[in-house]
Amino acid sequence: MFGQLGVFYLSQEKDVVIIGCGAAGGTAAQFARKTDRKSSITIFEKGKYPQYSKCGLPYAISGDVHNLDDLVEFSGDWFKNAKIDLLLNTTVEKIDVDNQIVIAKKNNGSIEKSYTSLIIATGAKPYIPPIKNIYDRNKLTKSVFVLRTIDDAKLISSAIEKDKNAVIIGAGFIGLEMADALYKKEMNVSIIEALPWILPNTFDEDMANIVYDGLPKNVDIFTDYIVTRVENKSNRIYRLFLKNNKTNEEKELFSDLLVIGTGCKSDSSLAQKAGCKIGRLRHIIVNNKCETSVKNIYAIGDCTEYKDFVTKKQVPIGLGSIAVRQGITAGINAAGGNYCLPDGVLQTCTSEFFGTEIAAVGPSNDILKKMSVVSGKFTGYSRAGYFPGGKKITIKVFANKKTGKIVAAQAIGDKAAKRINMFACAILADMDVDTFKKLETTYAPPIAPTLDVETLVCDIVSMKINRGR
Amino acid sequence: MFGQLGVFYLSQEKDVVIIGCGAAGGTAAQFARKTDRKSSITIFEKGKYPQYSKCGLPYAISGDVHNLDDLVEFSGDWFKNAKIDLLLNTTVEKIDVDNQIVIAKKNNGSIEKSYTSLIIATGAKPYIPPIKNIYDRNKLTKSVFVLRTIDDAKLISSAIEKDKNAVIIGAGFIGLEMADALYKKEMNVSIIEALPWILPNTFDEDMANIVYDGLPKNVDIFTDYIVTRVENKSNRIYRLFLKNNKTNEEKELFSDLLVIGTGCKSDSSLAQKAGCKIGRLRHIIVNNKCETSVKNIYAIGDCTEYKDFVTKKQVPIGLGSIAVRQGITAGINAAGGNYCLPDGVLQTCTSEFFGTEIAAVGPSNDILKKMSVVSGKFTGYSRAGYFPGGKKITIKVFANKKTGKIVAAQAIGDKAAKRINMFACAILADMDVDTFKKLETTYAPPIAPTLDVETLVCDIVSMKINRGR
Repeated sequence: MFGQLGVFYLSQEKDVVIIGCGAAGGTAAQFARKTDRKSSITIFEKGKYPQYSKCGLPYAISGDVHNLDDLVEFSGDWFKNAKIDLLLNTTVEKIDVDNQIVIAKKNNGSIEKSYTSLIIATGAKPYIPPIKNIYDRNKLTKSVFVLRTIDDAKLISSAIEKDKNAVIIGAGFIGLEMADALYKKEMNVSIIEALPWILPNTFDEDMANIVYDGLPKNVDIFTDYIVTRVENKSNRIYRLFLKNNKTNEEKELFSDLLVIGTGCKSDSSLAQKAGCKIGRLRHIIVNNKCETSVKNIYAIGDCTEYKDFVTKKQVPIGLGSIAVRQGITAGINAAGGNYCLPDGVLQTCTSEFFGTEIAAVGPSNDILKKMSVVSGKFTGYSRAGYFPGGKKITIKVFANKKTGKIVAAQAIGDKAAKRINMFACAILADMDVDTFKKLETTYAPPIAPTLDVETLVCDIVSMKINRGR
Repeated sequence: MFGQLGVFYLSQEKDVVIIGCGAAGGTAAQFARKTDRKSSITIFEKGKYPQYSKCGLPYAISGDVHNLDDLVEFSGDWFKNAKIDLLLNTTVEKIDVDNQIVIAKKNNGSIEKSYTSLIIATGAKPYIPPIKNIYDRNKLTKSVFVLRTIDDAKLISSAIEKDKNAVIIGAGFIGLEMADALYKKEMNVSIIEALPWILPNTFDEDMANIVYDGLPKNVDIFTDYIVTRVENKSNRIYRLFLKNNKTNEEKELFSDLLVIGTGCKSDSSLAQKAGCKIGRLRHIIVNNKCETSVKNIYAIGDCTEYKDFVTKKQVPIGLGSIAVRQGITAGINAAGGNYCLPDGVLQTCTSEFFGTEIAAVGPSNDILKKMSVVSGKFTGYSRAGYFPGGKKITIKVFANKKTGKIVAAQAIGDKAAKRINMFACAILADMDVDTFKKLETTYAPPIAPTLDVETLVCDIVSMKINRGR
């Protein structure tokens, strides 16, 4: 799949070292190799697996993907054939910036490796909210789970073989994907969300409600609630205590297991010690070449932050799609090429749960709220009105109140992801709603109406803006 | 569905007259009404049906759309409620430009109607290639069909109740849609195409071959062949004589019916007599406001030609999607509003036959051949590699050799239409492949890979262009 992307051949030899073999680090290695056939490329990975898809974990738990091992996208042999040194179970302990050396530990032995370019792709760790009694000697108790690694997924998969009731904290993508997975495994699922509606970072309340209405009735959702403490029996959770954020009302839930999906915190300590500039949220600050503030050190993936394309303000990176694009960029640059990312990230995202596809692009919902934008929403169908079998699609578009430029879009339903790609393209092109609403979209009775929801919703936004003028 | 588009209220009264109530004319009436609540709006339609979907006809024949009447998108009552005078079975015979009067005939009576704005939406008629013996006293013999009206579809539907073998001339959209419809009706279907491959206007040979390979093996396709004559028995076709365009080789086919899908010719005679400037292909020349060369006369739909967005050269209009957009434009402008189309048409199109979705955007294939472009092709899957059930998608992209700007795209397979919409957006934004290849597309394992075919194919084109520099 990457076989087709930019190949350069340089004469000068390079020593590229990468810390972390996730989507970002693994991709960087591949593109460093494509850029320079001769350079030495080394990856230090603290875990025991070569590059695998973290985003695929919920689907391996649900059974949609048959085996957890299927998630390994690039095997040890693949890296070997590409002449990339992949050292698993190897933890980098220090970066000696002055001498350009990385010091790592493997099986109690120490490794020193010099670099001409270093790429930090140390990722992120799950954030665990302060809940009383979920730790047992500094480790999560046996029936409390996060989902970040293949090993996490293995623990969950083995737990659900015997358990019946699951509580999930966090109604974001991971939370809802896990809810779907556990529901498919015939568990009773409850979801607890601290904010007033599900998918609070992605959607406005009206859009979130459409998703909510599509959830199975026997999935219980508690919005505005946090879990304050749990009670354990024989070292396993059996009861959770909830408190309403607004009313302080308390609730109790019985559950066999608890999955925490409340986001991640950047793993940036190595970079920080190496002197890399760190942002407000403890992510490594990088530019459009994925360079850090330290010479010859790049950083990519979930441990970094970069500009948002619309606001030009720093945002933490938390999407596999961006990690891969940063991996391409850092890989090429570290090996002597020259590649730049666009002037910010679009944060295009999608997911699917309980049969509903959702997607969005643009700044997160809390940022949008503070911007001077006009929004419009439209619901239509995937086919000409008279053609049976049309599927519902709702799109909400946000545009700059003054310029009319599209800044964000949210979609639920039929081909939501592909429709949002159009808006991603429009945002990247600085397109305004007046231009977009006239776009000639594909039309054929079984495939789309003459005027598709994408353009109709932009016409609504355009009208609102013009009225306000 | 149109309820949301641009509403203006003007005080000055207008007399808007529209000739033709197809997609273009009907839409124009609706938008004239939205633009000015008070204006008088009159439509003269020579046929007996109010606005219906011509593009839906093959699907009513196949049974996908249950009744031909379902295709009527806006009924007589709808127009009545909107206070739009719709006169069916009424043929306009003359436009008196000096006095701004239209003279029409209905039931042998004559109607004179003055206008302040006139919109010509007279459409097109099927082109019938010169085939010996297909006419019986200047009318097509009973078993030779075209597909342009509900009445045409009724004739075909009634014929296929008893017939078993069908030959279709023309392997364009209509030809292949009809082939699919008749195949669904369990007929034996053969298709004859004068050019060297199917979909010759839409696709390059390599792309057309992918579609070809997906057709059922028992649908016979004869490319490079024309039908020279037919033989009739009891006033019905039973034998066709084919000749190869290149080798002159001759063939005979037995068939009960013949469907001609070889394109249309503009019905522009009224406009021409009124003094409207007519193009090389006999279409009415219009600008971005849908104005003709004659004051207060607009023209829209299949009877017109307008600029291509990429080449800026005139192209005949032959798509319902463009007809509707021209209808919006002319309707608003005729009623005193101010609305412009983009600086040319993108010719975005899509269709689906035998389970394969196809789509394209940009100049037709014969024009592309003469341009200085670089193309690239890529085949990928709709899901992450490890996720079962991924569907194939092939995209070919054409970019300007010098500037890298995207000028056209062709797609076959999974969600082809929506993917082509992205390229339509990119072309409208004058985007180049170097920018597009970095687009952050939606990613989630069940929905799309981290790098989608759209961006990967642009990377290939970008590489080819850079190599050539």
